[in-house]
Amino acid sequence: MARFSSLDAVVSAIAPPDAAAAQAARARQDQLTKPLGALGRLEELSIWLAGVRGEAVPRIGRKVIVTAAADHGVAAHGVSAYPPEVTPQMVRNFLAGGAAVNVLARHAGAEVLVVDAGVAADLPDDPRLLRLGLRRGTADFSSGPAMSRDEALRCVLGGAELAADQVAAGADVLAIGDMGIGNTTASAAITSVFTGLPPAAVTGRGTGVSDERYAEKVRRIEAALAVNRPNPLDGLDVLAKVGGLEIGVLAGVCLGAAALRRPVVLDGFIAAAAAQVAQALAPASVAYMLAAHRSAEPGHVAALAQLGLSPLLDLGMRLGEGTGAALGIILLEAAARVLAEMATFAEAGVSGSDEAQRDEG
Amino acid sequence: MARFSSLDAVVSAIAPPDAAAAQAARARQDQLTKPLGALGRLEELSIWLAGVRGEAVPRIGRKVIVTAAADHGVAAHGVSAYPPEVTPQMVRNFLAGGAAVNVLARHAGAEVLVVDAGVAADLPDDPRLLRLGLRRGTADFSSGPAMSRDEALRCVLGGAELAADQVAAGADVLAIGDMGIGNTTASAAITSVFTGLPPAAVTGRGTGVSDERYAEKVRRIEAALAVNRPNPLDGLDVLAKVGGLEIGVLAGVCLGAAALRRPVVLDGFIAAAAAQVAQALAPASVAYMLAAHRSAEPGHVAALAQLGLSPLLDLGMRLGEGTGAALGIILLEAAARVLAEMATFAEAGVSGSDEAQRDEG
Repeated sequence: MARFSSLDAVVSAIAPPDAAAAQAARARQDQLTKPLGALGRLEELSIWLAGVRGEAVPRIGRKVIVTAAADHGVAAHGVSAYPPEVTPQMVRNFLAGGAAVNVLARHAGAEVLVVDAGVAADLPDDPRLLRLGLRRGTADFSSGPAMSRDEALRCVLGGAELAADQVAAGADVLAIGDMGIGNTTASAAITSVFTGLPPAAVTGRGTGVSDERYAEKVRRIEAALAVNRPNPLDGLDVLAKVGGLEIGVLAGVCLGAAALRRPVVLDGFIAAAAAQVAQALAPASVAYMLAAHRSAEPGHVAALAQLGLSPLLDLGMRLGEGTGAALGIILLEAAARVLAEMATFAEAGVSGSDEAQRDEG
Repeated sequence: MARFSSLDAVVSAIAPPDAAAAQAARARQDQLTKPLGALGRLEELSIWLAGVRGEAVPRIGRKVIVTAAADHGVAAHGVSAYPPEVTPQMVRNFLAGGAAVNVLARHAGAEVLVVDAGVAADLPDDPRLLRLGLRRGTADFSSGPAMSRDEALRCVLGGAELAADQVAAGADVLAIGDMGIGNTTASAAITSVFTGLPPAAVTGRGTGVSDERYAEKVRRIEAALAVNRPNPLDGLDVLAKVGGLEIGVLAGVCLGAAALRRPVVLDGFIAAAAAQVAQALAPASVAYMLAAHRSAEPGHVAALAQLGLSPLLDLGMRLGEGTGAALGIILLEAAARVLAEMATFAEAGVSGSDEAQRDEG
């Protein structure tokens, strides 16, 4: 299994999806017992997955949701409705199986890999917790960089390595989710940098803050951009200056998954921030990403437009953790199963249409 | 278990959902380890399900998709891209497990109950096929009624009886899907009657017809309405004059499910036509319906508006059979599992918010 010694090694390993496999999947879809195109997005998903995996009839076995947690220095300014101690408390909840992502992952038949990407608290000694030991939370980015450039690089490489380990252990699908009090603030800052939109246009209420805290949140992002001047053409610069440790790790998971030809299912706004960092580092990685849902966070729409991705679901969810991604995995597997398990017209002895045309677009 | 001796018996058994159970579910949602309202539609679904079932923490075990098949006299006019023999061919495909609904039902952990509601062909002797023996296809409704009023009544009662049997056998969720060459034509006619919209506004391409066949489809619906003059205030009149045998059975399933406090998950356009018949017969039944998705058929939007239902998914699907309903079942069960399985703040030792307000609306 590939090991990534450098960011260049990961980025240069990312090839375009396999057009021949995608074409073979499309040809099979058109032989299945249904009108052409009648399963809509499910058909497109199965064709996309074939290209990603380089197989005409890809199967999905092991599914892993990487839920990375970290703390954010900017949270000291009260940008969240919850105190920072909720980050480690929720990590314990993930390990105990009681959080929303645990429930939805069980429903999807997926595992949750909980990652300490930089929680600013002591965490229990638990073999199921992957500790990356990067640092205990970021610095307050409203008065300086969130982390050093070297730390940002280590986040991304740690995530890519993690993805490689999971693929080596049989993961067919990876998904990314997050936990970190203050991380919608970092994600809004990242999205503002990459999209060029003003902070107020991409900043939402996160966990549900008051008008006063919302105004403070926007001010802190404006200050972060003014103080740090992140360069949107340099993904590591953006990550280091206004990012988060979990966001860097999740960006690395995106890159590692793309390099190893595995689909990576994005959760909501924070995952989209990580995906934008991955896009800046390796534009080709976006072809391996699937946007599970449209979050209720207003900046998510802008982030998805920047990525050029269209979300599968729109259920008003805004929890993070990988909850939306778990539902996206279910739909992706549904698409793969349709392609693999449906009978063809010939197999089932069903008459075809003499005129139906595939709907395009 | 209730048996329905008359339509009045079914209709009068339909009570409103249990407001106290729904309120208890909402109170529990607000104690679970997530910001208030952060799971959006999943939270609403779980609260709705609690009201439907009359239980604060409803569990979903057995799930049954009722896929009812029948033929349509109007199909002789070439309103579909497929010939009528596809209806029995697809019934065989359902029984063999090779159709899209079989694959998606397996993914959802649901059973498919295949019902011969009036297929105009000999079908295999298969114990898994439920034969209602109503008649072999409808008459051509563009020159007279599709069936008699008594036949329409027997369809509905057959569907309600079927629902009662499934509930007696442990079904926690029912879903309705269809198969019938020509049945988007009947569904467009039904939707035109109930919504008051002209046929052209609610008629789509169905399985994918040419411009010429589309024009003929609209003309046949216009003729059906002119010849039959169905009364939108009389559900049986509409069903008898411009309906279908499978549509009547599925309307009966909606009524039976509502009477027995089970959620009924609607598939696409044909299911919505059946639901409108149920609504006309018993307006209170709509409170037990869940619209799984928005179909690509243009009349579906009008039908959902008539029902006052908001679809969960919008994936450009237009296959029928119960395929969209299978995905809806997965989301409904996800919602139920979140409510039942997530830890509360107190159980998990997670700090709450001092200010977060539930998002309303």
